[in-house]
Amino acid sequence: MPDKPLKVGLAGLGTVGGALARLMAARRDDFVARTGRSPEIVAFSARSDGDRALPLEGAVFFADPVTMAEKADIDVFVELIGGAEGPAYAAVKAALARGVPVVTANKAMLAAHGLELAEMAERSGVSLAYEAAVGGGVPVIKTLREALAGNRILRVSGILNGTCNYILSRMETERLPFDVCLKEAQRLGYAEADPTFDVGGFDTAHKLSILASLAFGARIDAGAVTVEGIETITLADLAAADDLGFRIKLLGVAARTDHGVEQRVHPTMIAKSSALAQTMGVLNAVTIDGDAVGALTLIGPGAGGAATASAVAADLVDLARGAVAPAFGRPVGALVEAERASLQRHEGGYYVRLSVLDKPGSLAAIARRMADRAISMESIVQKRAGGDDAAYVSVALITHATTETAIREALALTLQDGVVRDKPQLIRIERA
Amino acid sequence: MPDKPLKVGLAGLGTVGGALARLMAARRDDFVARTGRSPEIVAFSARSDGDRALPLEGAVFFADPVTMAEKADIDVFVELIGGAEGPAYAAVKAALARGVPVVTANKAMLAAHGLELAEMAERSGVSLAYEAAVGGGVPVIKTLREALAGNRILRVSGILNGTCNYILSRMETERLPFDVCLKEAQRLGYAEADPTFDVGGFDTAHKLSILASLAFGARIDAGAVTVEGIETITLADLAAADDLGFRIKLLGVAARTDHGVEQRVHPTMIAKSSALAQTMGVLNAVTIDGDAVGALTLIGPGAGGAATASAVAADLVDLARGAVAPAFGRPVGALVEAERASLQRHEGGYYVRLSVLDKPGSLAAIARRMADRAISMESIVQKRAGGDDAAYVSVALITHATTETAIREALALTLQDGVVRDKPQLIRIERA
Repeated sequence: MPDKPLKVGLAGLGTVGGALARLMAARRDDFVARTGRSPEIVAFSARSDGDRALPLEGAVFFADPVTMAEKADIDVFVELIGGAEGPAYAAVKAALARGVPVVTANKAMLAAHGLELAEMAERSGVSLAYEAAVGGGVPVIKTLREALAGNRILRVSGILNGTCNYILSRMETERLPFDVCLKEAQRLGYAEADPTFDVGGFDTAHKLSILASLAFGARIDAGAVTVEGIETITLADLAAADDLGFRIKLLGVAARTDHGVEQRVHPTMIAKSSALAQTMGVLNAVTIDGDAVGALTLIGPGAGGAATASAVAADLVDLARGAVAPAFGRPVGALVEAERASLQRHEGGYYVRLSVLDKPGSLAAIARRMADRAISMESIVQKRAGGDDAAYVSVALITHATTETAIREALALTLQDGVVRDKPQLIRIERA
Repeated sequence: MPDKPLKVGLAGLGTVGGALARLMAARRDDFVARTGRSPEIVAFSARSDGDRALPLEGAVFFADPVTMAEKADIDVFVELIGGAEGPAYAAVKAALARGVPVVTANKAMLAAHGLELAEMAERSGVSLAYEAAVGGGVPVIKTLREALAGNRILRVSGILNGTCNYILSRMETERLPFDVCLKEAQRLGYAEADPTFDVGGFDTAHKLSILASLAFGARIDAGAVTVEGIETITLADLAAADDLGFRIKLLGVAARTDHGVEQRVHPTMIAKSSALAQTMGVLNAVTIDGDAVGALTLIGPGAGGAATASAVAADLVDLARGAVAPAFGRPVGALVEAERASLQRHEGGYYVRLSVLDKPGSLAAIARRMADRAISMESIVQKRAGGDDAAYVSVALITHATTETAIREALALTLQDGVVRDKPQLIRIERA
């Protein structure tokens, strides 16, 4: 018997869209075996309808994705345009309003409008699926939403941006400064011409807000994410980390604390022995701590056309099978408003690098300020500054667990004391 | 409105069954939020109905799980009894025959009867779910069946038995021999009184045959798995591996080759830098290579009551949501009969440890036998034997890629030449 087709409308024919079209053609028979339905791209929208050497024969071209979402005879709208607002957002709303399920890779849109879109999908009784939005080919969405559905999730931490991880890995292994590694990443196509969105931590923040919602059954709260980028990381920090048994990674961390839910993105020192620390290059990795499962880690390609298309295809297979799960694991009405834990109350160890006046009493003054706030030190490494001024030495210190407020106050006072110069470098340490 | 219950019949109240009962009670509200259904254990079967301090109030006790499967008013039969045959198998068949979905953690039963049971489930239009059967809390079944459904899977390799990984990890880090570490594992409850099933590789083989079916869309063929255990691994092998940049792990590997599908379980040398090599203790880890996703690695607790119950709970949530996927990813009728690749045609690098007669010409004789079969050597490490006979030295060598036949023949000839004594130790090297 002829299989009922799954009529796909594909919006966006960039790297991922093109890879998806090729994947769907190559894997058609297996898709039919898995789902009983034959996937057909019956409509597409892109900047031009020119020859792309893609298997799109017979598909109707729409210049405007919104028109496609409104008019095309499709069973699912696949949004691979990108951008929080604009045509992607308008087209997804148009599809959901019409009762057409949506598959998207758009983390910026979900971070900004995920709740509204999930509500629309619920009203229409259709899926809003977005495995490709976080972690590329790493199935972290399905894992949180389904595989760990029996757990109370305590914490999610991960390397969610391959660009940053590539740059930090290159800085560490090649001992090249940030600017050089960034240019290299741009040349290789790993970083955009304007890299702020990646290296500033904002892409990671979008993804983290989605994971936090799934993990904690909470309404997405992208505004609650504290964000620091990797631009200030120096070779001196990486060398000090290495001496101390750590690596520096840009982590997104969402955790339940006594004060509410913490969501933070920042360069982090993690023990070299941890799975996250060992994730190098453009890979992504996520560790999820659940009360039943313990710690589960997923590592894989976080970007790239084929890997991301793999995630989109998984959503399409689920859809073709008729599996509809609430977008954020629970219906929007059941999602809680998570209390925001202030970063000032964050508790943990800290790495601090200071440029310290090279005279008797400097270290003692710093130590006193720390002790006044009950901050105890795990180690101190002093090195002559390789810089311009022999009057200062570089001191790296590691604290035992303290609070953000305590360490910030202690450092502010050492600046006032006149024994250090410049803003201290401060990097949070994460148990892993 | 009162939620429609999900009436669960739970067969087996061991570590996992007890953990599941507790998890379901603790996570009831979230389960309802996720699925709209309230999970209730309405019937249970165990060796005795005595006080277990478990939340089973109101549940009907059945001494015989088969009777429970046949008669109880249940929406799902959860089988946590274990064993390939006997009451587990009979009860699961009874449930499926009656159109009651089954959730099981029973890898031995699936390896032996998975196809028959999947066919029964298909005829009844119900689920046969078994996330907990492989990898404990690590969601490798869902990942292969759903998350990577758009991929042609090329290879699955993993640490699937926590007992073996614990023993090998302890041997390596504590430099204690196999027997001592095995006893320790038994004392800690990681190994059974009769450890053969674990340390002989048979448990891993059962799990691997299930993963191979999911990965390659093939009918389960547990008889095709080549199995070698870890009993022969010595501290000398671990030390040699360390010198050469490797660790030794008991891996299950299922791979497409030019000659068919290889399924093999054996101690394996893998580069220390790989995620599998870095998985220590009772953890499990699986790396899946797909044509679109690339390499994806999952690491987490492979056993333990709570972690395994987490996997069972995930299956129950899927079931309560009405998500029915074919047990092995595709309907049984669509599964192919995979051609068995003979281990003799396996291609790869080898580690060989020989006890070599300490006289001029010995190494030359060995090298000649290797060269005759076009085996090229990557490295040779010679050490004086710490043993009983000063006339022999221990030689560890690493070959470049060759075939199983070539290396076996070359070694047999060196034995005939009289330059080595005892059976050589041979460990396959795996790229990771």
